[in-house]
Amino acid sequence: MSITENGHFPRVVIIGGGFGGLQVALALARKPVEVLMLDKHNYHTFQPLLYQVATGSLEAESIAFSLRKNFDNQKNFKFRIAEVTRVVPDKNIVETTIGNIAYDYLVIATGSTTNFFGNKEIEHNAMPMKSIPEALNLRYLMLQNLEEAVLKKTKEEREPYLNFVLVGAGPTGVELAGALAELRNHVLCKDYPELDEKEMKVYLVDFLPKVLGPFSDEGSSAAKRFLEKMGVEVMLGMKVAGYDGTVITFEGGKTIKTKNVIWSAGVMGVIPEGFSKDVIERGNRLRVDKICRVADHPNIFAIGDVAAMITPDTPKGHPGVAQVAIQMGKNVGRNILHLLRDEPTDPFEYKDKGSLATIGRNKAIADLGRLKFQGFFAWLVWMFVHLISLLGFRNKIIVLIHWVSSYITYNGGTRLIIRRYIKEAVPDQEHALPNSD
Amino acid sequence: MSITENGHFPRVVIIGGGFGGLQVALALARKPVEVLMLDKHNYHTFQPLLYQVATGSLEAESIAFSLRKNFDNQKNFKFRIAEVTRVVPDKNIVETTIGNIAYDYLVIATGSTTNFFGNKEIEHNAMPMKSIPEALNLRYLMLQNLEEAVLKKTKEEREPYLNFVLVGAGPTGVELAGALAELRNHVLCKDYPELDEKEMKVYLVDFLPKVLGPFSDEGSSAAKRFLEKMGVEVMLGMKVAGYDGTVITFEGGKTIKTKNVIWSAGVMGVIPEGFSKDVIERGNRLRVDKICRVADHPNIFAIGDVAAMITPDTPKGHPGVAQVAIQMGKNVGRNILHLLRDEPTDPFEYKDKGSLATIGRNKAIADLGRLKFQGFFAWLVWMFVHLISLLGFRNKIIVLIHWVSSYITYNGGTRLIIRRYIKEAVPDQEHALPNSD
Repeated sequence: MSITENGHFPRVVIIGGGFGGLQVALALARKPVEVLMLDKHNYHTFQPLLYQVATGSLEAESIAFSLRKNFDNQKNFKFRIAEVTRVVPDKNIVETTIGNIAYDYLVIATGSTTNFFGNKEIEHNAMPMKSIPEALNLRYLMLQNLEEAVLKKTKEEREPYLNFVLVGAGPTGVELAGALAELRNHVLCKDYPELDEKEMKVYLVDFLPKVLGPFSDEGSSAAKRFLEKMGVEVMLGMKVAGYDGTVITFEGGKTIKTKNVIWSAGVMGVIPEGFSKDVIERGNRLRVDKICRVADHPNIFAIGDVAAMITPDTPKGHPGVAQVAIQMGKNVGRNILHLLRDEPTDPFEYKDKGSLATIGRNKAIADLGRLKFQGFFAWLVWMFVHLISLLGFRNKIIVLIHWVSSYITYNGGTRLIIRRYIKEAVPDQEHALPNSD
Repeated sequence: MSITENGHFPRVVIIGGGFGGLQVALALARKPVEVLMLDKHNYHTFQPLLYQVATGSLEAESIAFSLRKNFDNQKNFKFRIAEVTRVVPDKNIVETTIGNIAYDYLVIATGSTTNFFGNKEIEHNAMPMKSIPEALNLRYLMLQNLEEAVLKKTKEEREPYLNFVLVGAGPTGVELAGALAELRNHVLCKDYPELDEKEMKVYLVDFLPKVLGPFSDEGSSAAKRFLEKMGVEVMLGMKVAGYDGTVITFEGGKTIKTKNVIWSAGVMGVIPEGFSKDVIERGNRLRVDKICRVADHPNIFAIGDVAAMITPDTPKGHPGVAQVAIQMGKNVGRNILHLLRDEPTDPFEYKDKGSLATIGRNKAIADLGRLKFQGFFAWLVWMFVHLISLLGFRNKIIVLIHWVSSYITYNGGTRLIIRRYIKEAVPDQEHALPNSD
């Protein structure tokens, strides 16, 4: 396509301002293209720290960053708050909540959402944690349940409010389990003198035989050791059969009374309408070629959690981690420019920078290629990597202050219920929050 | 009353964790009484900075502080999230959302809410800003309206989204007007290159002939001068006749097209059921004696915005400012101990420490008794006083960082729409927020 065709610069529409979408837009700065980013939120979410928003150790704003502000200085960038309802490839337009928008190139960077594997009961009763509003809902629910526990007369009545069950022992489940254990061990006795911390229990459940599945066995078993040392009950090889909102049942019949079930057992891609089943792979992801182009759609790209690049080396596609989205985003940005200039494109090659997970103070797991270590130094590396990856200098400073003060006082964070969480007030999946005023 | 009567320490129930309630609880630390604080929120709100939460220059958490955390070390202090529905003085109990609670002494520190003077139409369509959820609703509404303006094709269509009308030129209205003017002057062009800042207008309306009514004429006229210099249209001696959600109408017929009307034209006390009309004064406040005791109720106190201490020197009671609540709170705490020991009580004497209001960078008004000054030095004093008054060391640091970075960059704050504000989704007064995820 020539750069001046239809009298305007070619328009690249990016759906989603996550890790991948940001990189595409940045790669196109000062280039002869028009960049339009669409997102249902006006901010980028730093998902790796969502769990700290849920436990109240960080406020939402310090892990979110205004997308408009981030591109203040990029002249060819435009942003709109919009949800894309459908893609119409034949017409090169997307149908959105703010009307139809034409594109020359489309980048689908919509990420993933919680996968309840079709279990409506669990979906209705368990809490997901994939977005800031969901993390806040979770924080409010957990705090409200502690307040409820304070009002109950007997241990039996308190039990469901003080049992926390985390389903899915990936990084999210592990980090949340560690954070809740620290809350129990250091904060509960101070904030809730009425409660006996021994009555608060944190369960981490997975149907796999190990925690942190994708990590090395060394890292994975260290994580399990750390968690158990902190008092988390790790239940592996356990499959959830159902959850009615008060009792979670496992295959084999074991049950736990709990009002707090957090579901991080799986994710699935978020694909707009308009694609045929043949291009959709396992995990609701779009099948893409070596340059992240959606099969049979030469001017549509998919990156990150919503893309499945099936190759002999990656039979299941790439892992759903930020690094994949970031590297795919940079690759797609470059290749769009190559295509505009009729130059050969660079096939995507994933450079695995390794994995990090933190369990608690001085406790983290680092699997950096051959380099594997755990404990205090891994924890420093984890903090450093997450701080430098945060968008915004002020966010870095503020998160650092929160972490330092939490480390010193053992009692960091603002455990505020800004808006009461009332599930009944809303339809499934919505989790609306009537203003408590 | 003897300290050991009914086999327990006398119980002091405090309704409300605002400026006044906090002081009562603190004054009773390590004293032979049981302190129970009830609040519908689990946090204290630093109301003087609410307007900065509304404009997105501060995040909610940094002006709020966990009430439980604040009293971590006070053994005789208990906290419950509860709303008091009725006081039953004859039985010495309060009826609450968590059941009936008995008291020996009751302190009503419920503060005030927005007064729409009975105009239901305005109450339904205008935005109040007396709590953190209300300030967040206002932030989201204003940002959503800027996003709407971006989507409109013509100046006429954009007009109602870009007109901001602040009704009530007290400190809240003045400070919000200044903050919005700075947003227009420094941020709009960066975040919304699509918009022409000349199209955004900020109106400050009052039916009085001056802004900052309670301030000295010198301070008040300086404030007006500052505001006009920043481009705020100050409309004095104007009475609002109605607001239908799109057009605000003034007596005399003038109208302004606007989707943004913020109402800070008046407040009224929040009194639980159970009191006879004879003890209720103008502004829905409880009439109290020299030691803040509610008329005819020897063991019930009222302090701050909900108290009216009518004396020859204060024919209308005291001004509705934090200092009155704080000083009344300390006085009531002391006097409860005096009463327990059958000692004479100290009558309340208000020490007016003066008034401060800020309009924008380097622009503030200080009326400190005979000492009156305006501009940069007043602005430094304003910042210093507000910083030291904030609860929590970390909050002080974080607010300071936000202010410094905003001062340097002219583009501070996180203008995030965490949850979309949808008025239609909820009954009046509720302002619920369906989760946008």
